[in-house]
Amino acid sequence: MSDNSSEIKDISLAHKGLERLEWVRERMPIMRHLKARISDEQPFKGLHLGICLHVEAKTGVWLEALIAGGAGISITGSPGTTQDEVAAALTKEYGVKVFARRDESFDDHLQFAERVLESEPDLIIDNGADLHFLLHQHETFAQVKHKIIGATEETTSGGYRLREELEEQAFPTIVINDSRAKRIIENRYGVGLSVVDGIMRCTNILLNGLKIAVIGYGYCGRGVAICLRNLGAHVTVVEIDPLTCLDAHLEGFEVGDLGDAIPKAEMVITVTGSSGILAKEQFADLKDGAILVNAGHFEFEIDVAGLREIATDSRQIRENIESFDLENGKKLFLLAKGNPVNLAGGDGNPIEVMDLGLALQTLSLIHLIENSATMEHKPQNVPAEVESEVSKMALEAWTK
Amino acid sequence: MSDNSSEIKDISLAHKGLERLEWVRERMPIMRHLKARISDEQPFKGLHLGICLHVEAKTGVWLEALIAGGAGISITGSPGTTQDEVAAALTKEYGVKVFARRDESFDDHLQFAERVLESEPDLIIDNGADLHFLLHQHETFAQVKHKIIGATEETTSGGYRLREELEEQAFPTIVINDSRAKRIIENRYGVGLSVVDGIMRCTNILLNGLKIAVIGYGYCGRGVAICLRNLGAHVTVVEIDPLTCLDAHLEGFEVGDLGDAIPKAEMVITVTGSSGILAKEQFADLKDGAILVNAGHFEFEIDVAGLREIATDSRQIRENIESFDLENGKKLFLLAKGNPVNLAGGDGNPIEVMDLGLALQTLSLIHLIENSATMEHKPQNVPAEVESEVSKMALEAWTK
Amino acid sequence: MSDNSSEIKDISLAHKGLERLEWVRERMPIMRHLKARISDEQPFKGLHLGICLHVEAKTGVWLEALIAGGAGISITGSPGTTQDEVAAALTKEYGVKVFARRDESFDDHLQFAERVLESEPDLIIDNGADLHFLLHQHETFAQVKHKIIGATEETTSGGYRLREELEEQAFPTIVINDSRAKRIIENRYGVGLSVVDGIMRCTNILLNGLKIAVIGYGYCGRGVAICLRNLGAHVTVVEIDPLTCLDAHLEGFEVGDLGDAIPKAEMVITVTGSSGILAKEQFADLKDGAILVNAGHFEFEIDVAGLREIATDSRQIRENIESFDLENGKKLFLLAKGNPVNLAGGDGNPIEVMDLGLALQTLSLIHLIENSATMEHKPQNVPAEVESEVSKMALEAWTK
Amino acid sequence: MSDNSSEIKDISLAHKGLERLEWVRERMPIMRHLKARISDEQPFKGLHLGICLHVEAKTGVWLEALIAGGAGISITGSPGTTQDEVAAALTKEYGVKVFARRDESFDDHLQFAERVLESEPDLIIDNGADLHFLLHQHETFAQVKHKIIGATEETTSGGYRLREELEEQAFPTIVINDSRAKRIIENRYGVGLSVVDGIMRCTNILLNGLKIAVIGYGYCGRGVAICLRNLGAHVTVVEIDPLTCLDAHLEGFEVGDLGDAIPKAEMVITVTGSSGILAKEQFADLKDGAILVNAGHFEFEIDVAGLREIATDSRQIRENIESFDLENGKKLFLLAKGNPVNLAGGDGNPIEVMDLGLALQTLSLIHLIENSATMEHKPQNVPAEVESEVSKMALEAWTK
Repeated sequence: MSDNSSEIKDISLAHKGLERLEWVRERMPIMRHLKARISDEQPFKGLHLGICLHVEAKTGVWLEALIAGGAGISITGSPGTTQDEVAAALTKEYGVKVFARRDESFDDHLQFAERVLESEPDLIIDNGADLHFLLHQHETFAQVKHKIIGATEETTSGGYRLREELEEQAFPTIVINDSRAKRIIENRYGVGLSVVDGIMRCTNILLNGLKIAVIGYGYCGRGVAICLRNLGAHVTVVEIDPLTCLDAHLEGFEVGDLGDAIPKAEMVITVTGSSGILAKEQFADLKDGAILVNAGHFEFEIDVAGLREIATDSRQIRENIESFDLENGKKLFLLAKGNPVNLAGGDGNPIEVMDLGLALQTLSLIHLIENSATMEHKPQNVPAEVESEVSKMALEAWTK
Repeated sequence: MSDNSSEIKDISLAHKGLERLEWVRERMPIMRHLKARISDEQPFKGLHLGICLHVEAKTGVWLEALIAGGAGISITGSPGTTQDEVAAALTKEYGVKVFARRDESFDDHLQFAERVLESEPDLIIDNGADLHFLLHQHETFAQVKHKIIGATEETTSGGYRLREELEEQAFPTIVINDSRAKRIIENRYGVGLSVVDGIMRCTNILLNGLKIAVIGYGYCGRGVAICLRNLGAHVTVVEIDPLTCLDAHLEGFEVGDLGDAIPKAEMVITVTGSSGILAKEQFADLKDGAILVNAGHFEFEIDVAGLREIATDSRQIRENIESFDLENGKKLFLLAKGNPVNLAGGDGNPIEVMDLGLALQTLSLIHLIENSATMEHKPQNVPAEVESEVSKMALEAWTK
Repeated sequence: MSDNSSEIKDISLAHKGLERLEWVRERMPIMRHLKARISDEQPFKGLHLGICLHVEAKTGVWLEALIAGGAGISITGSPGTTQDEVAAALTKEYGVKVFARRDESFDDHLQFAERVLESEPDLIIDNGADLHFLLHQHETFAQVKHKIIGATEETTSGGYRLREELEEQAFPTIVINDSRAKRIIENRYGVGLSVVDGIMRCTNILLNGLKIAVIGYGYCGRGVAICLRNLGAHVTVVEIDPLTCLDAHLEGFEVGDLGDAIPKAEMVITVTGSSGILAKEQFADLKDGAILVNAGHFEFEIDVAGLREIATDSRQIRENIESFDLENGKKLFLLAKGNPVNLAGGDGNPIEVMDLGLALQTLSLIHLIENSATMEHKPQNVPAEVESEVSKMALEAWTK
Repeated sequence: MSDNSSEIKDISLAHKGLERLEWVRERMPIMRHLKARISDEQPFKGLHLGICLHVEAKTGVWLEALIAGGAGISITGSPGTTQDEVAAALTKEYGVKVFARRDESFDDHLQFAERVLESEPDLIIDNGADLHFLLHQHETFAQVKHKIIGATEETTSGGYRLREELEEQAFPTIVINDSRAKRIIENRYGVGLSVVDGIMRCTNILLNGLKIAVIGYGYCGRGVAICLRNLGAHVTVVEIDPLTCLDAHLEGFEVGDLGDAIPKAEMVITVTGSSGILAKEQFADLKDGAILVNAGHFEFEIDVAGLREIATDSRQIRENIESFDLENGKKLFLLAKGNPVNLAGGDGNPIEVMDLGLALQTLSLIHLIENSATMEHKPQNVPAEVESEVSKMALEAWTK
């Protein structure tokens, strides 16, 4: 293919890709509404968007709306998460420049990101800040960078990197995931439900009466703890911040420190956002037969490498369940290799969560187009009026 | 293979079958306890069991225990539910006579059931009463029949057929599913959880705030309604018995009749045990985009044939989701072709539910061995002392 | 007053009594509906009802309906529960013969019951079976007895006495409290709520996070346990029936035996219907500062006499809280002298519970009038059609 | 009495006052712990505290601790809330200067506040900012003012007045009620429970199945809504902030605007902190028989004066229930004259809530003693380390 064309697996999958969009489109009423509106108003007319996001069906439905709003689009994804048939459909049916293959290497990924920037986008939609760092650190993109109106960054960790590691920035960046709306809908509600889903798929066990230790009681941890309790599990919360722990106690949870909770738990779920929560020295204290689950952001909340070191034997005994034998004769079971169980063991975030998240993206982009001139060139929160407007659209879509 | 040998798909799958038993065995502590006990006591010594049950991993772990208790075993399954690798493992590793292949026809099934009876069992474990009817209606088995000590029947519907359609019976039959213990653990708790699991797998949607009509508020319906409400759904209960409906109202559910509930529901779930609950004439009144789910015992609670008739178009748009276009412009979405969503869309009953159910089976068989002489020759409830003993074992297994 | 007239405290309280009926009447919509209906149909025309029930406002509103339906009425109450102003209003405004004073002695009570029977009632409404025993055991009433069409008995314990202690009975008696409708609305819902109310009034403490042991998990115990858990308390259930205990475990409660639960509980609530549940030998094992509550039927679920014996000191430290010092230095706090906390510490059953219960009474009386000839002369359940009709009226009243 | 002595109702009530402290002291374990600690450390040695707080038992137990910590104390209360027997006990047993009588007039109140300031306190504990305004606006106290180390203010509204209406301030003031700890324990948990308690006491009705509109979904509103829903009520939430409303929807509540919710609600509860929420023009649209409840901070959330104007008749029909007849024939019932139902209809905040709040007070005072020199002279939040330390003490007290 030529320099300007897509780099995808197989264009002939386009028809299958279109099918995949159908159910998702059905469950994205906010985007349906937004699409109708921006089709009229054409806020993206003449603008090119450079996107780095998972190339899958929910993103696909979003791109349909952006295109209807006048946007031109170049997109790349992440290694391992691309749905090749969606990539094909976007290329063939919508003329999007797609640089993404499920089997792409990390080198491919970096090259693809550069291809997106070479399309000279007016706005950037980033995921983990990769595009931002390329733009600001590579000479090649010096000119592109100064043409850019503004950007969004999907993740909290990307926002963190921008704040900590990138001193001078050429444009304002709105960090989507830090919004109160995302925290409520995704962390408090979406994660709890999808973690239950992931656990059930991996294990087929009865949660009623199960003794579960939930480590971490932030928005996500609270969502997970409440969902599981409401389904009949006996949940103990472990939380180091005393006031948050007090909150869990008054909410009706048993609370305790890690040392108390671990020997009694039949399942341990980490939801902290930190690494090494379940560390090498704890594994031997776990109850025999305990099931280990990570529902946090990263794969290293449970020290899986350490577990492998001390295990005398390990084997995959069911899809997404690995069994570990310890020297003291106990067995432990690890779900989804320690990856977030809702993503690795289930289908990830419910569609509606993405519908709202992508609506925040859309209105944040329009906000940048209209206000970039007066905005500071640094990472910032989703504007309150955007949160409010998206919430109204969600209420309208979900309660009528 | 010879007349006495297994009829299975492929004996070389035995190793894989053994692996499948491992996770299940881990989660069946009641059976572990029972196995140790009957290994000592040998209640089945010298007895041959003729079984008709799904040939899959949970059954496999049960057979391990029965064999340890001295039993010889012949088993057949049901068309479409056999796990061929488990069949192989049972044959090769445990010397069980297995007559079951996933791809067996209905004729094969009947022939296999006869093969089980030809093994001249002392006790019968039945599933839908097929073995009972063969025994009582075929001359060939007249002698076998009179040798039989007693039987168990797994299902409520099998028990019903025995009561209604089989006048003279040659031995007592204990109907497992009618027990209070099964009703509590399976209907009240297991079904609710597995229905949530099935719906999440099929759809990947957010249940929070979703308007769901649950039709039927028996043990199963109550379990489903409470699980969904506890996860944040807005549940309306439709129930024709006024006192049961009053109970739902006081439990905090909105209640209404079918006509009120249907036009507002974004999802309709049938859990009645009756047929044609969602009938041809109702489909047009459903909300546009409504999702139809059956969580009852039979595939005909939703009149799928009628839906096909009135639909102007239908197509499979995702595994386990079929889309129907109606003449009035509405779309409806049917999950799992109208089959019970927990079975067809998920993994069925949680393992622990089967652990308790198979413990009831085991102690009922021992009860028959010890008391058959004084028991009436007709279908009967699980003896109270069996329920009580299994409950104690479950408490011991699950709360220590 | 003459032989036929009321025996009440003070007729001049009538105006105040009328006022007390107003709020109650407002919250008894089923009775409002029934009153309209029986005003038309006059089912009690020419019949005299002999009643023994608490003479208070809810009963008063019921009598208004019965009178509208054509009934003549003589009523007595129970020592200590009569509202003298209601007694006055019933006498003065409605011409009811009332034999009840709050300060009546037990001898008065017996004499008053005789006065009711001397009115030669056609139907009997009893509470604890006192009228039944007077009728069947006193020669004086031999003739009255044989004139009676039938009776109702409000309480389970009265029904029990009739079944166990009264061999030949002269008429059919419907036992109201054994009905499934009463069990659901009163035991499952009404008791839980009113126990919370009673505890809050007595103590003004925070239930969130409080460790509470609920002893007994029947209909009432379940209602109490769920209410408290839903308000944020940490509830442990103690239940001796293994299957019921298993149910509590799967519902998400911690379960344990009395010995496990007592030393950890900050509050212990008995809801068993049996006596001596908290016995002399347990008090020393309770946690220091534990609060003791009875929510069962009788005042002797907690052995208060035994507690007094072993206490080194005791004193009333707040209305409805008595403090006991034990030899081992611990303090215990007893609510409402060990009487049912919902009755003694609060206002008793919510009005709506009585509305439904008195509707069951009304339709049971009409059923007796219409069917007495063909009914057996013994205690029996509320007819299914009465339960069903009352449930329909309740649904109509409460969901429109 | 002399200038320096108490102004109380009756010193002979002291013995009764001591009794009232006993149960409260029992339920204030944090204060017990703090008292032991400050008895050792004597942080208040040589300091005089000028206090304006409700003179009742919980405050009394707090003063015991402060005195043990070395403090001298002058205190005044609020008109109508003083417990005269506690005032007597504090005066007689602890030598506190108390200026408070339940029957004091507003003029008395002002004079009493001046008496407190005349004691030349080193630290001020204020409630509604009255002491602050006296100090800053009266010439008399110019010198006293400059001697003061710092102050606490109990209420949010007092903090608001200080921020908006008092420009130059002579010392730092810590606003207790704005702390996250208070918001969680009091607003989220304490208010919900005490509102249920208040409603039950006033009405004796069944909450199960009752249609309740909760107006406002802040911390308090959420607590109220969840408590009521968990007890079986059908709760509709009315909330004008779209994101907060979305949160309520996803939590499983029906949401709607005031116009939708009012005609269907059998009970309306205002929890907004704003006035005139239920205004004159809405009363006619309410459902016939609706019960009106205020659970917010002020008595004017419901426009009671407006209700009186349009009512054709009104009368008190039960303690804390007033009935209003409207021109359109409907009746409305107002609880507790529109005052906050948990305070006016029940016993107010659970004791444990005050235990934590007074611990925040205590450590905030010590923080002022140690850090006043470097603190800004304006209202400020409770220091994070104080919140954290109090939370730890609460966890220690409540979970061991």
